Amino acid sequence: MTDSPVFVQPNQSDWTEVAPGVRRRLLCHDKNLMMVEVGFEKGAVGAPHSHPHIQVSLVVSGRFEVTVGGEKRILETGDSFRTPADVVHGVVALEPGVLIDTFTPHREDFLA
Amino acid sequence: MTDSPVFVQPNQSDWTEVAPGVRRRLLCHDKNLMMVEVGFEKGAVGAPHSHPHIQVSLVVSGRFEVTVGGEKRILETGDSFRTPADVVHGVVALEPGVLIDTFTPHREDFLA
Repeated sequence: MTDSPVFVQPNQSDWTEVAPGVRRRLLCHDKNLMMVEVGFEKGAVGAPHSHPHIQVSLVVSGRFEVTVGGEKRILETGDSFRTPADVVHGVVALEPGVLIDTFTPHREDFLA
Repeated sequence: MTDSPVFVQPNQSDWTEVAPGVRRRLLCHDKNLMMVEVGFEKGAVGAPHSHPHIQVSLVVSGRFEVTVGGEKRILETGDSFRTPADVVHGVVALEPGVLIDTFTPHREDFLA
């Protein structure tokens, strides 16, 4: 059973460093829907990558250069972006910031 | 075609009043994953309800009394909660606040 509790406080999850200046922790999730908090230091890079999961992300704070499928935008607090399955996407944190990434189905690789 | 653009700024969406003191606007969404911003005035109520969609929600600001499947908690900024399909859930805004609701599949009823 890999589902999160029904209620999750962020401190219940451990940070995982995923790249220099980039760390994530799991918020609520079940097999079909996963919410993840990702913290970035200024200049940190979420390198271009793709996965079969559909992703929608929200800029909670900071300012990011976001590239999805070759299209590039500067996003700020409150902005969101959507990545279809298998589309290459990546971010650069122009200042310290936080993204909320959501996925369907869940990222089994984040549970390992 | 009901998918949102790949990049969404919140002002691109119109607010819909859904109950006294409660309004929502759509952020990024496709058929399988939908992100929605919900704003609450102090004391506003998201009345108990259920739907077949799986839901994960994040408290972006404010303080909410959240009930999921009969279990009640006070949630604050950064906390999240998860509602399995068809489970009754509701919220009361203890102060002005914002939730980010995510659903799989999308809420077709929100697109009408």
